[in-house]
Amino acid sequence: MRYELYYWPTIQGRGEFVRLALAEAGAEYTDVARRSGGVAKMTVITDGKRTRTPPFAPPFLKAGDLIVSHVANILMYLGQHHGLAPKAEAGRLWVNGLQLTITDFVAEVHDTHHPLGPTLYYEDQRAAAKRRSDEFWKSRVPKFLGYFERLLGRNGPYVTGHKVTYVDLSLFQLVEGLRYAFPKRMNRLEKKLPRLIALRDRIASRARIKAYLASDARIAFNEEGIFRRYKALDR
Amino acid sequence: MRYELYYWPTIQGRGEFVRLALAEAGAEYTDVARRSGGVAKMTVITDGKRTRTPPFAPPFLKAGDLIVSHVANILMYLGQHHGLAPKAEAGRLWVNGLQLTITDFVAEVHDTHHPLGPTLYYEDQRAAAKRRSDEFWKSRVPKFLGYFERLLGRNGPYVTGHKVTYVDLSLFQLVEGLRYAFPKRMNRLEKKLPRLIALRDRIASRARIKAYLASDARIAFNEEGIFRRYKALDR
Repeated sequence: MRYELYYWPTIQGRGEFVRLALAEAGAEYTDVARRSGGVAKMTVITDGKRTRTPPFAPPFLKAGDLIVSHVANILMYLGQHHGLAPKAEAGRLWVNGLQLTITDFVAEVHDTHHPLGPTLYYEDQRAAAKRRSDEFWKSRVPKFLGYFERLLGRNGPYVTGHKVTYVDLSLFQLVEGLRYAFPKRMNRLEKKLPRLIALRDRIASRARIKAYLASDARIAFNEEGIFRRYKALDR
Repeated sequence: MRYELYYWPTIQGRGEFVRLALAEAGAEYTDVARRSGGVAKMTVITDGKRTRTPPFAPPFLKAGDLIVSHVANILMYLGQHHGLAPKAEAGRLWVNGLQLTITDFVAEVHDTHHPLGPTLYYEDQRAAAKRRSDEFWKSRVPKFLGYFERLLGRNGPYVTGHKVTYVDLSLFQLVEGLRYAFPKRMNRLEKKLPRLIALRDRIASRARIKAYLASDARIAFNEEGIFRRYKALDR
């Protein structure tokens, strides 16, 4: 079956966590909104005119008639069907919990440039964004990434042991995103995260991920997504 | 089996979504951190000294050796084992996606009083909190609650149809929380949300929920949790 991924066409954003899993799974999919008329097609579904289960927002995945929305939910589904998560209940719940920690972290990354809300422009909240970014790097990044660094130290080389899961792919994306958005701050922190950086390198060198990253399917980071490079926020 | 719930002992917070599901399920559980020495017991688990799968943060649920963390993950687990969610894959994923929309909304509720980050006091971010609260009520509350109102209109009386799920219990808590934290703003909005308010009343009158709400197990709302009543933020 060929999947349909629905997400905004010009950004990596939250959709990128799904794209990475689809790439690693070797799954066939259409990135619908990147095709002509695709955004309109996406809106018809979120408007709820053609489905009883309309998602609140992109990203969502269609698998035949099934619609799965929210990154962690889509990854749980793909993980089960493509061997990117444990089969047993305990393992599935553990991996889903890890992904939900990443979900929370991603929301906090977004808040660094939109502390006063997603509905105002960054340009209208620069001062608040500076304060939030300082707090984020002082307290939150060490806490979140330190947690995964410790898990890698205990379980490694992947975060849950010797098999790659979708969580490892998402951790790769976090490192890439933080390097892009906050190069100075991230550069200083990396020496405290040797296992996470080694994981990033291991994921980057996997054949399907490597091919995906080199392809047109990988959109470049830019200042419309989750990870944005604003010089004022990097010190 | 008797569950163990681990969450901060003096607030409803995120743990309350779990407590409501446990109540509706009629499940036996110990609210560990509310007992003597319980917070220390919770910290031992998050420190990872006694488990290979340490949660990032409370709330988490222990079911024998199994540890399940994050509200949506715990609810998915309880939903499966206590008939509070559909059994089939499509239904489970649909309900989990709805709960993840609620998760996002709860994070935005918290941001109304902590826009500059969870590590600073509210008193140090009052001006930013006012701006964020205004944006939240102008754009975000109508969008999120309007989404569930439309689903109730289509599917009702519960959000996914004729059977109650854990999502309905969480929607009850959202209404209660917004009424507590923002009484003026919520009062004005409620006339636009007749189905959501009717759902709130229907949940409140369920026997087990009614008994739970009247018991000591239900902690009162206060200014340490997610929903906080700050007069400056309500207009």
